[in-house]
Amino acid sequence: MFVIITYDVSESRVNKVRKVLKKYLIWTQNSVFEGVITEAKLYKCLSEVNRIMDKREDSLYIYKVENPKNLSKDVLGICKNPEDMFL
Amino acid sequence: MFVIITYDVSESRVNKVRKVLKKYLIWTQNSVFEGVITEAKLYKCLSEVNRIMDKREDSLYIYKVENPKNLSKDVLGICKNPEDMFL
Repeated sequence: MFVIITYDVSESRVNKVRKVLKKYLIWTQNSVFEGVITEAKLYKCLSEVNRIMDKREDSLYIYKVENPKNLSKDVLGICKNPEDMFL
Repeated sequence: MFVIITYDVSESRVNKVRKVLKKYLIWTQNSVFEGVITEAKLYKCLSEVNRIMDKREDSLYIYKVENPKNLSKDVLGICKNPEDMFL
């Protein structure tokens, strides 16, 4: 399964959320992670993030595509580098 | 076709990019638009955005799923509201 995770998390929690996501997925852009992951690992990832987030303020969207072949990705401009991530 | 567009654009250009994206897609979160769109309309949208972006600094990712049925979306936390967009 291929997932794209986008998030809008308060400054006070965003680094912790990023650290969790970075264990499971690839940072691609400000507030965006992507990658191939199993349902079990995604469940584990989201349970960890769930404990950090304040669900009244923060938001995290999980786009799932079962077969990665059904998704294509184009880039306009530069391809961000994981080192660009502010951790 | 369903698309998710994520972007990392310099402050000086980001509002213009948002205004273009808002004509074609739905704002869902900070730096994220999504929606169903035709190939022709997506081409038009990206040509407009292309004229605004500085491709040495800015980055825009376009995730495409031909059949929207092949994509599912979950939300953790709050569902952001288009009015929350800083325009």
